[in-house]
Amino acid sequence: MAKIGKISGFPEWLPEQKIAEDRVISTIRAIYESFGFTPIETPAVELISTLGSKGIIDKEIFAVKRLKADESDDAELALHFDLTVPLARYVAQHGSFLSFPFKRYQCQKVWRGDRPQKGRFREFYQFDIDIIARDELPLSCDAEVVSVIGLVMDALQFGEYSIRINNRKLLSGLYSELGLDESACRAAIVIVDKLQKIGAEGVRAELQKISGITEAAVETIIKTTEIRCSADQLAERLAPLKLISPLITEGVQDLVTIWELLPESVKNSAVVDLSLARGLNYYTGLIVETTLIKYPEFGSVFSGGRYEDLASEFTTQKLPGVGVAVGLSRLMELAFTEGLISTSQRSPTRALVTVYSEEDRRLSNDVAQQLRSAGLPTEVFYKAPKLGKQIEYAESKGVRYVLFIDAATREVKVKDLVTKEQSKIENLAEWARTIA
Amino acid sequence: MAKIGKISGFPEWLPEQKIAEDRVISTIRAIYESFGFTPIETPAVELISTLGSKGIIDKEIFAVKRLKADESDDAELALHFDLTVPLARYVAQHGSFLSFPFKRYQCQKVWRGDRPQKGRFREFYQFDIDIIARDELPLSCDAEVVSVIGLVMDALQFGEYSIRINNRKLLSGLYSELGLDESACRAAIVIVDKLQKIGAEGVRAELQKISGITEAAVETIIKTTEIRCSADQLAERLAPLKLISPLITEGVQDLVTIWELLPESVKNSAVVDLSLARGLNYYTGLIVETTLIKYPEFGSVFSGGRYEDLASEFTTQKLPGVGVAVGLSRLMELAFTEGLISTSQRSPTRALVTVYSEEDRRLSNDVAQQLRSAGLPTEVFYKAPKLGKQIEYAESKGVRYVLFIDAATREVKVKDLVTKEQSKIENLAEWARTIA
Repeated sequence: MAKIGKISGFPEWLPEQKIAEDRVISTIRAIYESFGFTPIETPAVELISTLGSKGIIDKEIFAVKRLKADESDDAELALHFDLTVPLARYVAQHGSFLSFPFKRYQCQKVWRGDRPQKGRFREFYQFDIDIIARDELPLSCDAEVVSVIGLVMDALQFGEYSIRINNRKLLSGLYSELGLDESACRAAIVIVDKLQKIGAEGVRAELQKISGITEAAVETIIKTTEIRCSADQLAERLAPLKLISPLITEGVQDLVTIWELLPESVKNSAVVDLSLARGLNYYTGLIVETTLIKYPEFGSVFSGGRYEDLASEFTTQKLPGVGVAVGLSRLMELAFTEGLISTSQRSPTRALVTVYSEEDRRLSNDVAQQLRSAGLPTEVFYKAPKLGKQIEYAESKGVRYVLFIDAATREVKVKDLVTKEQSKIENLAEWARTIA
Repeated sequence: MAKIGKISGFPEWLPEQKIAEDRVISTIRAIYESFGFTPIETPAVELISTLGSKGIIDKEIFAVKRLKADESDDAELALHFDLTVPLARYVAQHGSFLSFPFKRYQCQKVWRGDRPQKGRFREFYQFDIDIIARDELPLSCDAEVVSVIGLVMDALQFGEYSIRINNRKLLSGLYSELGLDESACRAAIVIVDKLQKIGAEGVRAELQKISGITEAAVETIIKTTEIRCSADQLAERLAPLKLISPLITEGVQDLVTIWELLPESVKNSAVVDLSLARGLNYYTGLIVETTLIKYPEFGSVFSGGRYEDLASEFTTQKLPGVGVAVGLSRLMELAFTEGLISTSQRSPTRALVTVYSEEDRRLSNDVAQQLRSAGLPTEVFYKAPKLGKQIEYAESKGVRYVLFIDAATREVKVKDLVTKEQSKIENLAEWARTIA
C-alpha cells in the first residue's frame, strides 16, 4: 500500500478550516474590489531566467521539470516564489492592454524551495495588492494602500493591531547625514530590520562592524529606532537630532502627506515607527508592516512599500508602484492555533431534508431544490434509514435545520436542532430566505 | 534585459478575462455549495509515489525539485496531474475527521507534463465534485451528480448541451455476452471511446483486431453504439439484440433508477448513449459526459462517473464514490474564442470620484468610502488633472458613473457615461444601493 503522510511545509486544512480560510479570502477580496483593484492570475510557473531577473538569490527556488524530459523540452521552468516578479513580467508583457494606474490584486500559492524544517511553509497563499503607474505615482496611492490595510484588519477582527509605517528616504537621509555612504546605509537598514529579532544590543554590535562608522552615528541610529509617533509629531521628535538634509525633509513630508490622507479610523491604528526598516533592497519610499498587538512574535501580517521601478528588467518604461502582501496561510495557522476564527462550520449545508422511504425521495428532492433556489444550501439524506440516523448525520455535520415531509399531505415540518423547536413551514421559499 | 514571453501551454488571462473566469467559478461554486458540497484544497505537490499509486503511467508528470537540492532533501515530489488522486490521499489521511458521505468540491490548477505542443494546456483549472461513502453508495448520489451538471450548464448559459450517460456494467455485460473475456471487454471499451475521433469504420477495424472476437460481435457492438434514448426506452431498444444477463439487467436498472431521480429540466437535456465508454479503467457503474451541441469537437465539458473504490492504494477501507470534473481553463478559452461570455468588465470599479484639486482629495475619499460601504466598488482618481482627463480614464476602464463634488456646498453630482445624463445625488448610500 502506498505510503501517505504530511509533506513537511505543505499545509493542508480540514474542511472546517478551509471554509474559514475561504471566508477570510472573500472578506479581503471584497475590500480590495471595493477600491477597484482587479484580479489577475499568473501561471504557477515562470522561466527561471525571469525569476532570477531581480538578482534575488536568497530565495530558494523549486525547479519544475517533466519526469520524462528529453531534448525537445523547452526552457528551464520553476515555481514562482512571490507574486511581485510575476506581476512585473505580466505588466511588461501585457502593458498595452492594461489601464494605468493598474490596480491589481492577486491571491495565489507561492513556493519557497527551503530545506524542510519545522514551522516553515514551503507552499503558502499570498494575497497582494499593488498600484502601478506609468512614469509618476502620487502619494495618494501610498495612502490608499495603507487605508486598505486598516479596513481589512478591522474586518478580519483578529484583535488589536498596529500599522507601522516609515520611509526609506528618511532612513537614507538620516544615515547619510551621519556619515554613512550608500553601501553603509544599505547595510545599516538590513541591521536595523533585525531589531525585533536581535534586540538593541545586537543591533549596536552589528552596526559597530560597519567600516568607518563613528560611535556617535551608532548611538544616533539606535536613538532613532526608539521614535514612534504620529506623522505630525515627527519633525518635532527628530529636531533634537539636529540632522537636516533635503532627503530627510522629503521623507518626513511624504509621511505627513500620506498620514493626512488616511481616514481617522486608520490613523488611530497607525504609527510612524523609525525602527521599521524592511530588508529588501528595492523599496524607495514608504515602507509598512502590520503587527497584531497580542502576537508580536508572529511578525507582520501585511508588509510592503513603494518601489520606483517595478519591471526595469523587462521593459525600458518606468513603472513606479506601491503595494502590500499578506501571507495568508501563516495567518490562518495563527488564527486556528489561537482560536481567532470560528471553525464550527463543517460544510455549506444549512438544512437537511430527510427521506422516509426511497419511494418518497423525489418529493424530498423537490423540497430541497426549492430551498436551494431561495439561497439555502440543502442536502437530501442519501439513504432512507430510520429518521434518528438522519438526524444524527445532521448533528455530526453541524446542520441546524432538519426537514420532514408528510408524503400524503405534503406538509413540511422543520426541527431546529439548536432550540429543539419543531414547526410547520407554510412557504418554503419564504422560510429559506429568512434563514439564509 | 530578461527575455519575456508566453510559456507554451500555461494560459494567462487579461484582467477582463480573469473577471469573467471568476464569475464562472463563483456560479459553479454557488451551485456546488447549494447541494452541500464542501470545499477542500490540497497542496499542488504530492509524493511521486502517491501520484503513481493508481498505476496511471500515461499521464506525464512534472517533477519538483529544489534548485539547490542536496542530500538533506526529502522524498521525491511532483505537481498533481488531477484532483482525484489527491482526494483519495486526503480521504485516506484525514478520514477520521470527515463526515460521510463526504461531499467535497475542489477548484485548483493541475499540471500535465506533456511536451509543449500547440493547443494543449499544461497548466489548467479543474473544478471537481465527488461524493464518497463508506462501504455503500446508493444511486441517489449518482442522480445528484447528474442533476448538478444540469443546473450548472443551465446557469452558465453557454448554449444547448447534452448530458450523455451510460453504465459500465451494461457495457461489460453486453460485451461479455458477445463472448469477450475481461481483457477483451476492457480493450473494446477503450476502442469504442474513440468513436468520435476515428468514426464507426475506425472502431470496426480496431475491434476486429481483438483476439478471438467474432464478426457478429463486432457488428453488434457497432450497433449498440447507435443507441441513444431515454432510460425508460432502453430495455425496448436493447430487446432486438437478444442479449440477456444479470449484469445487463443491473446496468439497465441502474440507469433507470438514476433517470427517475433527475428533475424534469435535467431529463430534457439528458440521454442514455451507448457509444459513451470513457477510456479510464476505474469506472464501475455510471459514466457521464456533457457536450455543447454547437461545439461537438470541443469534447466533454463535465466528465466523470462512479468508481467502486477510491483509495484502495492507501487504506483497507472500501470507499465507493461518484464524481465529475470540469476542465475550466479549456472551457474559458472556448468561451472567449466563441464569444460565449462577456468580457466587457475591465475592473470591479463601478464609480469614479473625481478630484478637483489635491486639497479636496479627502472630501473625495470620504464620498468614495460611503459608496464602498454601501456595496459599490469605487475609485478616487489618483491625481487631480483637468476633469476631462479623469472622465477619459473612466471611459477607458468602462466605469459607468463619474462623480463630481462641489467643495464649497458638498453637493455631489453624478454623470452616467452611458445615458450621458447628469443628476444630483441626495443620499450617497441610497444611490449606491440602487446601482450595486
